[in-house]
Amino acid sequence: MTYCVGVLLDNGIVFASDSRTHAGVDNFARFCKMTVFERPGDRVIVMLSSGNLAGTQAVVSRLRQRNERTDVPNLWGAQSMFDAVYLVSDAMREVDQRDGRYLAQSDIGFNASFIIGGQIGAEAPRLFRIYAEGNFIEAAEETPYLQTGETKYGKPVIDWAITPDTPLNEAAKCVLVSFDSTMRSNLSVGMPIDLLCYAKDSLAVRMCRRLDEGDPYFNALSQQWSEGTRAVFAQLPNPSWPAR
Amino acid sequence: MTYCVGVLLDNGIVFASDSRTHAGVDNFARFCKMTVFERPGDRVIVMLSSGNLAGTQAVVSRLRQRNERTDVPNLWGAQSMFDAVYLVSDAMREVDQRDGRYLAQSDIGFNASFIIGGQIGAEAPRLFRIYAEGNFIEAAEETPYLQTGETKYGKPVIDWAITPDTPLNEAAKCVLVSFDSTMRSNLSVGMPIDLLCYAKDSLAVRMCRRLDEGDPYFNALSQQWSEGTRAVFAQLPNPSWPAR
Repeated sequence: MTYCVGVLLDNGIVFASDSRTHAGVDNFARFCKMTVFERPGDRVIVMLSSGNLAGTQAVVSRLRQRNERTDVPNLWGAQSMFDAVYLVSDAMREVDQRDGRYLAQSDIGFNASFIIGGQIGAEAPRLFRIYAEGNFIEAAEETPYLQTGETKYGKPVIDWAITPDTPLNEAAKCVLVSFDSTMRSNLSVGMPIDLLCYAKDSLAVRMCRRLDEGDPYFNALSQQWSEGTRAVFAQLPNPSWPAR
Repeated sequence: MTYCVGVLLDNGIVFASDSRTHAGVDNFARFCKMTVFERPGDRVIVMLSSGNLAGTQAVVSRLRQRNERTDVPNLWGAQSMFDAVYLVSDAMREVDQRDGRYLAQSDIGFNASFIIGGQIGAEAPRLFRIYAEGNFIEAAEETPYLQTGETKYGKPVIDWAITPDTPLNEAAKCVLVSFDSTMRSNLSVGMPIDLLCYAKDSLAVRMCRRLDEGDPYFNALSQQWSEGTRAVFAQLPNPSWPAR
């Protein structure tokens, strides 16, 4: 499993991904699932990978190779985030075309999906989720965040606390609590967490860090959040009970 | 789907169940999933039903019919909660024996499970979850709560806020927030919520209520919880970012 989140806010986008890949509880490893394409002053594109690692790595490698060429469409030349997403979708379908039938022989589907977001030039920041089939959806005001992988444990805290006008730092804390909730309940989601806050119109990555096992900030956040929720419950009115 | 929770605390047990049953989004209905067997001063046994409605109703009806007889083992005569759980498990297997092969013809399994808890006489309160096969587990200090149905959305808030020494009223509020989280994300879990707090050694049901759509207390709780969590996030330390 995996857990990736992207949150589109008025002031930018928060991205986070875990790093656990596994094929059974006795076969797990760490791989970074966040890929950043940055040309300061021009564009920032962030991809979060979910699903079959061979598939997602092949897609990213194809995109990187194309970025080094000038004779093919690539992410450095994309005129909009929509065009960038098309390029990723095309790369996914190319990998599927190459590998799909061999995977099918072992009853495995091409199973790679991405959250992708960022900003190109003067266009407003945008955030998308691309499905394994290569089709995709875009985050909107009513649903400003997109998740992949083990999405359920970490969803309510985002619903409670994040709206489009939430500041980037506040949303980042909420996303980390969302990860904490998920990792407590699903062993196949694990640290380190890669966290990136993209500030609208910065066209550069200035807030990016990795939080590994035992990270003092993450542990403090987790503990203070737990204590904070208990304090909130203590302040909420008690239920009344009808006479019996 | 369904959502049921039982939480075993030092001072008693909190039970809650939703009321939605469905066979597709165009075919849903309301049924109470909480069954209470109470003889004040002697015993309180609470059952929360999940799964195939025909199956869970048949089990409860069998138990009720047996309770009216004196020549068969029944819940009024059970010497302990463990014995009571055996009686429920036996009733489940009897229903499966009668219906199972007919359901199997339509590729349907006997699929009924229960959370059951309470107190009989001087024995301490106990809480169990019975699986569809009739085997069961008992809540313990490390994991004082049991859930059935759509369990993921509502789990983190219980993990954060409830420990065995949490007072009944505090735990009840937390369980309601757990239901709110679940109902926001899964349409097949719906109001009314039946909520029962059993106080240890009371051997009577004194705190029990139903919360239906638009319940002012539930709405206030939900809103104040959401505001409370935002205030907690505002107080948590912001992440620091390494220089780039």
